[in-house]
Amino acid sequence: MDAMGIVKSDLGISVDGFVAGTDQSLDFPIGKTADGVPAHTVLHRWMFEAEAENQAEADAIVDAGAFIMGRNMFGPDRGEWDVSWTGWWGDDPPYHGPVFVLGHRPRPPLELQGGTTFHFVTDGIESAMRQAGEAAGDCDISIAGGASTVNQFLAAGLIDELRLHIAPLTLGAGERLFDGVAPLNLETVSSRSTSLVTHVVYRIPR
Amino acid sequence: MDAMGIVKSDLGISVDGFVAGTDQSLDFPIGKTADGVPAHTVLHRWMFEAEAENQAEADAIVDAGAFIMGRNMFGPDRGEWDVSWTGWWGDDPPYHGPVFVLGHRPRPPLELQGGTTFHFVTDGIESAMRQAGEAAGDCDISIAGGASTVNQFLAAGLIDELRLHIAPLTLGAGERLFDGVAPLNLETVSSRSTSLVTHVVYRIPR
Repeated sequence: MDAMGIVKSDLGISVDGFVAGTDQSLDFPIGKTADGVPAHTVLHRWMFEAEAENQAEADAIVDAGAFIMGRNMFGPDRGEWDVSWTGWWGDDPPYHGPVFVLGHRPRPPLELQGGTTFHFVTDGIESAMRQAGEAAGDCDISIAGGASTVNQFLAAGLIDELRLHIAPLTLGAGERLFDGVAPLNLETVSSRSTSLVTHVVYRIPR
Repeated sequence: MDAMGIVKSDLGISVDGFVAGTDQSLDFPIGKTADGVPAHTVLHRWMFEAEAENQAEADAIVDAGAFIMGRNMFGPDRGEWDVSWTGWWGDDPPYHGPVFVLGHRPRPPLELQGGTTFHFVTDGIESAMRQAGEAAGDCDISIAGGASTVNQFLAAGLIDELRLHIAPLTLGAGERLFDGVAPLNLETVSSRSTSLVTHVVYRIPR
């Protein structure tokens, strides 16, 4: 029996393949739609408005032994670190484990409540993956986003499972999953729809 | 009880949103993949290799009272009509009904076996829709493809139901569904996966 964890990524995505809109900012953490509303309110609407019927998929997003995210997912980049910025998630982030934040500027680890500690990695995705692997042990590693970070890991062949949460709308503009990633063959693991989302799980054979 | 048919479109599509590859030609009716294989052999593989487990969805593709398709879906455009060209589908095409082919060059109707007649429409999509509506009566109208034709009908707000057949692979290049179409809100009707395809049905509220 193989008790090793896998590397997975959960992504809220539009039917036309966008995982973020345009003009990301403090008020629009994953950008705007063409109508100017925050993209997260439409892409992730199922998490806010239909939690009960999508509980298993919502829980799975934060079910990992370690997480890796890009600099912009942790917070807007304004040059030097504003050390009063502790992420978007308040005092008790949903990760409850180590989160490795990719970036160029060193910063001491940031320990918040509930077991979440943000570690700032300045020497690239392979190093983040090695550190996350040591922290996760036999548990899964989650590549939490954003789009360009997930695309970097996909291009490097480092993701085993893509878990897409497809919102029933098109955005028309923004950041696309698979941008700059060479063609991939996937294996369909499962799919399920509720009124606000279609969940599809793909394995990426290594 | 409303017995009116709807306007629907069935599309084989990659996970990254392509309904055709690159370099369409006689040998590559919907283009090539990055590896140079015919895109239809990967996008439509479920129809050739797993017909039994996807029978309902395969049957539904040709379940309409009338069909509309673009010039390039009927055959490669080489200038004047080569009237010996009768489509890709042999003597008994799968449509078994009237098919309205959009284009710029007039040609007399082409009646083949099994009830399929190709009508060549030179005065635009609204005219094709009107003629298809008269032919279909209370049955559905299917916008059969290709990508640019479906996108034209989507942009004009003329499609009620998108039936996506998502093959578990990415293409990386080719013709994208939704290209040039303003953002849409959809309603998820159903989804189902088999090993070679995920079927997702969306309604587009008018």
